[in-house]
Amino acid sequence: MKKHIVVIAGDGIGQEVTAVGKQVLEAIANKYKHEFTFDTALIGHEAIEATGNPIPDETITKSKASDAILFGAVGHPKYDNDPSAKVRPEQGLLGIRKALGLYANLRPIKLFDELLSASSIKPEILKGADILFFRELTGDVYFGERGRKDEGNTAYDTMIYSRYEVARIVTKAFDAAMTRRKKLCSVDKANVLESSRLWREVVQEMAPRYPEVEVEHQFVDAAAMLLIKDPKRFDVVVTGNLFGDILTDEASQIAGSMGMLASASVGDTTGLYEPIHGSAHDITGKGVANPLASVLSVALMLDISFGMKTEAEAVVHAVDAVLKAGFRTRDIADSTTPADKLLGTKAMGDQILYYLAA
Amino acid sequence: MKKHIVVIAGDGIGQEVTAVGKQVLEAIANKYKHEFTFDTALIGHEAIEATGNPIPDETITKSKASDAILFGAVGHPKYDNDPSAKVRPEQGLLGIRKALGLYANLRPIKLFDELLSASSIKPEILKGADILFFRELTGDVYFGERGRKDEGNTAYDTMIYSRYEVARIVTKAFDAAMTRRKKLCSVDKANVLESSRLWREVVQEMAPRYPEVEVEHQFVDAAAMLLIKDPKRFDVVVTGNLFGDILTDEASQIAGSMGMLASASVGDTTGLYEPIHGSAHDITGKGVANPLASVLSVALMLDISFGMKTEAEAVVHAVDAVLKAGFRTRDIADSTTPADKLLGTKAMGDQILYYLAA
Ligand SMILES: CC(C)[C@H](C(=O)O)[C@@H](O)C(=O)O
Ligand SMILES: CC(C)[C@H](C(=O)O)[C@@H](O)C(=O)O
Repeated sequence: MKKHIVVIAGDGIGQEVTAVGKQVLEAIANKYKHEFTFDTALIGHEAIEATGNPIPDETITKSKASDAILFGAVGHPKYDNDPSAKVRPEQGLLGIRKALGLYANLRPIKLFDELLSASSIKPEILKGADILFFRELTGDVYFGERGRKDEGNTAYDTMIYSRYEVARIVTKAFDAAMTRRKKLCSVDKANVLESSRLWREVVQEMAPRYPEVEVEHQFVDAAAMLLIKDPKRFDVVVTGNLFGDILTDEASQIAGSMGMLASASVGDTTGLYEPIHGSAHDITGKGVANPLASVLSVALMLDISFGMKTEAEAVVHAVDAVLKAGFRTRDIADSTTPADKLLGTKAMGDQILYYLAA
Repeated sequence: MKKHIVVIAGDGIGQEVTAVGKQVLEAIANKYKHEFTFDTALIGHEAIEATGNPIPDETITKSKASDAILFGAVGHPKYDNDPSAKVRPEQGLLGIRKALGLYANLRPIKLFDELLSASSIKPEILKGADILFFRELTGDVYFGERGRKDEGNTAYDTMIYSRYEVARIVTKAFDAAMTRRKKLCSVDKANVLESSRLWREVVQEMAPRYPEVEVEHQFVDAAAMLLIKDPKRFDVVVTGNLFGDILTDEASQIAGSMGMLASASVGDTTGLYEPIHGSAHDITGKGVANPLASVLSVALMLDISFGMKTEAEAVVHAVDAVLKAGFRTRDIADSTTPADKLLGTKAMGDQILYYLAA
């Protein structure tokens, strides 16, 4: 098959990990006789420095014309410490999600057995946990009206959802539940928020259409607790943009490290594949970032956007094999990891390529 | 000393656990020769059933006239599953917080050594963790304008903060940090939200007044991850109402169980003391609820509202002694707990009273 992929590496470790992701795509093309062509585009701080705009038009145009997007990260400490900055790297990420209509963010949380000991959570609590998050990605307080009043002394943001926005992501979550353990947990704060009450109404209205799926509703505070207390109770979880942001980062601890978690952002057109870790400026340029989230994002791309199941599985198996062989980046190492198995970003990528070539 | 306490037991297990809390107050009065008088007031579902109003005027009047409030819980599944209900138990809790100006919710998270094994988190990650949360309690999306538009098909809530609201809670958090390990972590989502940018601005402006305090800012998603990955890195954490709701429930797993966590809601007048667990209708009336969060709420009341340090310590020591003696309620038991040490609510309360009397 012929596929055209736009690589948007962005800021911080986005550059380093995406380089590995791209190599994996090339290796897959080679092995399975596909023709993958690549282009690059700017986003975030990198784009601001080059063009003044965190999301140049060209990036949107190229993205729309592609078959899939391999994404790195956005963010820069400079803006974090300047609350008054008007132009911010994050506008790039939010902008591309909105421009491409990527309303469904899938975040699979699954622990590779070899990493059981890398988590701060007890192995017996984790073993067998397998959660698929659906985070809504183009609505909520991320995109509602915001501003200042009272001469700048009061600031507000609007949490807002419309029925169709809830229905389309909840549909995707129900459909996914049907292919898995048939359990759906919808997370909201309906005891306080009107937007959550609408969310819950929609889920309740749709549930009878999926009689085989066992539906539960949890308040976001309880969900944050239950994820750690008993992650195995969850199968598919669906929630809004803000709650999904918080809960999936938290859930990264179930997978041992944020450095292991991939995500797919899909909607009506081109899908975008992205590690859930951010730009991580504290380790940028040191060559120690874990590239496996980018590699696993490639696996999601092959599966979801290209329908290449075998190829996707080959990538996941390579990750598994490399972990089984004892190789670790710093974030997933523990006191038993021998020095010669502790790898940097590039060396870890090379191991993956080695297993893929085998 | 003479003190007048209003007991607002509310819904679900609120009744059972608060009964124990009140007994502890009586035992303390007896032992230390104080005169504690009591009154009761209605709230939540209980109040709706009796008066149609989740927060009757009488409850506010009595509360304002008291020296402290011992609170149980609010909530009822009936409303959770009916997103269109106009009158809801939670309005009682939000109403009393607002009416009494209880803008600062203190939630200490500390693991009793005996419960190291009760948590889903590894003991070596937990040991020594000691976090004091300051959750803002009378602002944010809890109290902003909310409603529907487009014939009910769009729902919105307003996240909103004013400078003075941020400043007064952050002041309390800085002051507390000065009496502890002198570290303050402020949690927001300033990379996306305007209300968070205002929050961060205020913290940044105030920091120079506390040169000894080491201040850090974390985004709420990263904070949710770090709490589980490395709870020991936190000392005092200050955050808004919604983020605080989510993070403190999550952090309950650091303390082994939600059933162990007490909170103090304070402001300009009477303080309110409340377990952070909710009404827990699944176990209501079964006599198995853990009363220790209510008991520890009493300890906070004695300390913060009455300035009775010795008495407060006596209560905490009683909890410690009972745990050391091996007694457990179901939520903090594990497979090694012998049957005769597994206690219900009342029996656990009796053990506490026994140690207090000693
Ligand atoms: C960088 C930031 C705007 C973003 C978000 O909050 O969505 C990130 O945390 C994520 O989860 O993709
Ligand atoms: C019952 C609910 C309204 C309340 C809240 O969200 O504040 C509770 O979860 C809490 O944390 O006290």
